[in-house]
Amino acid sequence: MDFLFPVRVYYEDTDAGGIVYHANYLKFCERARTEYLRHLGVEQDDYLKQNIAFVVKSMKIDFKVAAKFNDELVVKTEIQQIKRASVEFLQTIINKDEQSVFVAEVQVACINLTKMKPSAMPSGVLGVLQSASRN
Amino acid sequence: MDFLFPVRVYYEDTDAGGIVYHANYLKFCERARTEYLRHLGVEQDDYLKQNIAFVVKSMKIDFKVAAKFNDELVVKTEIQQIKRASVEFLQTIINKDEQSVFVAEVQVACINLTKMKPSAMPSGVLGVLQSASRN
Amino acid sequence: MDFLFPVRVYYEDTDAGGIVYHANYLKFCERARTEYLRHLGVEQDDYLKQNIAFVVKSMKIDFKVAAKFNDELVVKTEIQQIKRASVEFLQTIINKDEQSVFVAEVQVACINLTKMKPSAMPSGVLGVLQSASRN
Amino acid sequence: MDFLFPVRVYYEDTDAGGIVYHANYLKFCERARTEYLRHLGVEQDDYLKQNIAFVVKSMKIDFKVAAKFNDELVVKTEIQQIKRASVEFLQTIINKDEQSVFVAEVQVACINLTKMKPSAMPSGVLGVLQSASRN
Repeated sequence: MDFLFPVRVYYEDTDAGGIVYHANYLKFCERARTEYLRHLGVEQDDYLKQNIAFVVKSMKIDFKVAAKFNDELVVKTEIQQIKRASVEFLQTIINKDEQSVFVAEVQVACINLTKMKPSAMPSGVLGVLQSASRN
Repeated sequence: MDFLFPVRVYYEDTDAGGIVYHANYLKFCERARTEYLRHLGVEQDDYLKQNIAFVVKSMKIDFKVAAKFNDELVVKTEIQQIKRASVEFLQTIINKDEQSVFVAEVQVACINLTKMKPSAMPSGVLGVLQSASRN
Repeated sequence: MDFLFPVRVYYEDTDAGGIVYHANYLKFCERARTEYLRHLGVEQDDYLKQNIAFVVKSMKIDFKVAAKFNDELVVKTEIQQIKRASVEFLQTIINKDEQSVFVAEVQVACINLTKMKPSAMPSGVLGVLQSASRN
Repeated sequence: MDFLFPVRVYYEDTDAGGIVYHANYLKFCERARTEYLRHLGVEQDDYLKQNIAFVVKSMKIDFKVAAKFNDELVVKTEIQQIKRASVEFLQTIINKDEQSVFVAEVQVACINLTKMKPSAMPSGVLGVLQSASRN
């Protein structure tokens, strides 16, 4: 069960090569993960107030086809694996021609910002991720 | 007495028009103000720990000549006016041909992040800004 | 007649002060102008292919109330004045509490990217802007 | 033989978690690669004029220790492998305490922007990369 999130490419996202600047796909993916969590009822600012943040721990990325100014993209997000203190997402960005623009495996860890240490995921978050991944 | 800060234009700064994306000049100016304050002995993170931040309150900007990928720019910063809770800078970005690329009047206010309210500038900061503007 | 464009604040938009980084409001406004033009039938990439770009020439900005992570904002855009080679927009960003977060007068000029010179607006663009401003 | 490039963390690089926004480390690495190529005598805008660009093809990234506002970082870049149309870099970002903040294997491909197709690296570039990797 993929979560789909649309992204339009604006000038801010492009560079002088005429294509989307590579680091900006990571922003698109992070927006999509935020909206996925929101869709599951998780608001990250509630946790930020408790000094709990979800941070990217590692990524494996393939840049496939360049996206351009004005392109309409869709970020597909699915949960690959859930652990006690982290979750792995597979995120694929698709263009209008159904081509894969960008594919990433993204490991997100739960950290305690005060101690800057990994922290078990809040049970509320763990629960919704688990049900989402079962669907 | 201007404070000079060099900036190189990288891909991240440009857009599909082949020129620097307009909002990114504001980043260059903010880096220059940070380095100017550092040069005067003011480290903003010391104040951030006390929930005091220096935020931009207003700007009047002219975009003169477009800068391009790889350009070497210089940000000139000078203090125009100092008030109890704010300071006004004049910032000019110059290219290698001595052309003005960007000119801005920037009003920076001191705020208390807990109350999200304007706050008198810490006396240490006020003092160094006043001596800097007299030189 | 205002054009309304919603913006959600993501992590990418914020800074260590916990609020939206000032330069990022300019991105929100640029997205809104792009969507306004699109709504009027103007696709900027059609013009980019002819080396015609719409670039920001000057801005007068007030930063009123800080926006935060997860805030839902709306960018209101209206045309203030239309000239032969430029157009002035008034853009106001509003939060959920109907507060003005950001207000800017934005002068956008039409330029020829080959010559890097101002250029009369294409008649198609001029026409739709004129009818939009009359409504 | 590593190429070292210093980076200071400014407000623009951080997010509401108080740490560097993950995608921004990719910008630091791209600046470092640009300066490395420049150090070797390769100016990318010369190639851009011939519609040749060097684009990131894939990355394997580990985010190790979070960097904060005002941190002084160093990007270490070394060449790992050179192929006909691509080159692999190992890039490590180190903080003042000699901790690894970020480690990435970065595959950069040479592409023809007109055809949006991979292209053999210009012999000038290939040559300097080969001598650099031998040192």
